[in-house]
Amino acid sequence: MNRTQNLDSQEIILTGDRATGPLHLGHYVGSLKQRVGLQAVHEQTILVADMQGLTDNAHNPKKVSSNILNVVADYLAVGIDPAQTTICLQSQLPALAELTMYYSNLVTISRLERNPTVKSEIQNKGFERSIPAGFLTYPISQAADITGFNASLVPVGDDQLPMLEQTNEIVRKVNTLAGCSVLTECKPLLSNAPRLPSTDGKNKMSKSMSNTINLGATEKEISEAVKSMYTDPDHLRIEDPGNVEGNVVFTYLDAFHPDEEYVNQLKEHYRRGGLGDGTTKKVLEECLQEILRPIRERRIEFLGDKAQLIDILIKGSQVSREKTSGVLFDVKDVFGLNIF
Amino acid sequence: MNRTQNLDSQEIILTGDRATGPLHLGHYVGSLKQRVGLQAVHEQTILVADMQGLTDNAHNPKKVSSNILNVVADYLAVGIDPAQTTICLQSQLPALAELTMYYSNLVTISRLERNPTVKSEIQNKGFERSIPAGFLTYPISQAADITGFNASLVPVGDDQLPMLEQTNEIVRKVNTLAGCSVLTECKPLLSNAPRLPSTDGKNKMSKSMSNTINLGATEKEISEAVKSMYTDPDHLRIEDPGNVEGNVVFTYLDAFHPDEEYVNQLKEHYRRGGLGDGTTKKVLEECLQEILRPIRERRIEFLGDKAQLIDILIKGSQVSREKTSGVLFDVKDVFGLNIF
Repeated sequence: MNRTQNLDSQEIILTGDRATGPLHLGHYVGSLKQRVGLQAVHEQTILVADMQGLTDNAHNPKKVSSNILNVVADYLAVGIDPAQTTICLQSQLPALAELTMYYSNLVTISRLERNPTVKSEIQNKGFERSIPAGFLTYPISQAADITGFNASLVPVGDDQLPMLEQTNEIVRKVNTLAGCSVLTECKPLLSNAPRLPSTDGKNKMSKSMSNTINLGATEKEISEAVKSMYTDPDHLRIEDPGNVEGNVVFTYLDAFHPDEEYVNQLKEHYRRGGLGDGTTKKVLEECLQEILRPIRERRIEFLGDKAQLIDILIKGSQVSREKTSGVLFDVKDVFGLNIF
Repeated sequence: MNRTQNLDSQEIILTGDRATGPLHLGHYVGSLKQRVGLQAVHEQTILVADMQGLTDNAHNPKKVSSNILNVVADYLAVGIDPAQTTICLQSQLPALAELTMYYSNLVTISRLERNPTVKSEIQNKGFERSIPAGFLTYPISQAADITGFNASLVPVGDDQLPMLEQTNEIVRKVNTLAGCSVLTECKPLLSNAPRLPSTDGKNKMSKSMSNTINLGATEKEISEAVKSMYTDPDHLRIEDPGNVEGNVVFTYLDAFHPDEEYVNQLKEHYRRGGLGDGTTKKVLEECLQEILRPIRERRIEFLGDKAQLIDILIKGSQVSREKTSGVLFDVKDVFGLNIF
């Protein structure tokens, strides 16, 4: 585990997002900020996972296709630099599909059905027995993504650790077949940031539910989202003592406010009574407006030049095509299929 | 159903074999002879399915890789003409892997588990719960093969009809998503030849069990195979009446002997008694030696020039790469992914 982030050597990092909606504050604290930090030191690739996005959206493909450039604009807006980070599009890398096919023969259906992440996602999405094959098998496709770049380090939330276990199982099987080390096992890079709750305090943040604050949110949307945020339902009068735990406003203050000392003072005040939600929300709103204003402005600017966004994806995909083709060659060699 | 083979127009035909062993007499009467006839009239592609061969042989990949050129030599030896038929290698066509990924999102796991062909194969292979994902999902990959060539006609045994149903289901789903006809539904071309039994009369012919006669069988191997052939176990003395039904020697005579009248006379004689298995086997052996001698000789010649075999695969795969890429482009368009 790399909670300590004690990375002394240059690592090959693969990370990415399903292109199923604009990115939000949860992505920002959970991964995007970290990526901006990592890009200067490590060899980082970000995969815009359009094909993975289709695994549960095939009947509504616009949800994926219409978000590809949005996601790229999100990256640039938060400071991902295409000169330092390779940004590429999954559907532009045929080697990943081919690797998925080869790896599929090394993983059993029952192993996939035991995957805790997939299990809970299947439950959340209410698939029951009508799970699309592509959805049940997406851990194999993710293993193709990771190994296709020879990634040594994969930033994940701890709910994603079973994905890396599955990847490393495949790596070991391929290496055993080869009788030597063809593929690299990867390590997780766990984010220090705790998972950001949804603004309603109820669910995991969802791109499809209006319980998030998108990176491109307008001033008004931010204001409304903060105003409607879940606090302490028993904190009825300002003078009453209030609960800070589970109070989404404080969780967001912890995550985003630059002055920890000041947030601690607010918490104490709130706990002993006399501090209203209106005030804490005002502090949070100011802070979020300040963080999101430049991101929103850059985002609009980038989205105004779609040709540039496409060019970034083309160049990144070209570089990535070479890398992933090299790995595919090695894997096909293990199966004896490089006969010409 | 095309039992009548009433094909008035030029069809696009896709056919192929898993490269998991040399082809045998079952393939010869069941499909190879038919292909030789079809190639002059239709646009025929034969896919050497190395990737599909791996779906249940990933831990013994040599079984696949070592048979690719054998299978091509088998084709040429029986009269498949690369100037009329495109012969290509599945692993050389990345578009097929990509199509498989897209189609995987349109087929549920329970649909795959209901596939009668896969069901019985899973039972035969004793997979139970440890079915490789690639094996359960191979009907999707086959749909990619068929649609990837826009095939309108697919020669199959009737045990393979569920595969074409699955393919056409995918075709209809893609066309519904597209709102127009992007992919072509395919029709089966059922062979008139009944399925050839194994020489021991027990099992389905298997490339891995020694109950078949390979196209490359030596004179001695043919002789031994015929001598050990299953006849009528109750036909103990020559003068006894014998059973023709289930008697493998007669089934093979029906399939291979050019003189139907003569075979009918033999059957009558055998039924009323006085005809020994030694005699019927001698007739069959002569007939098989005559059929297989030129095939064996050509096979040896072709296998003596591996560069030529590889060249045929390279050229066929190049042509096929263009065709399948075109279909992939159309399917990606349905999902809105041709953004550059």
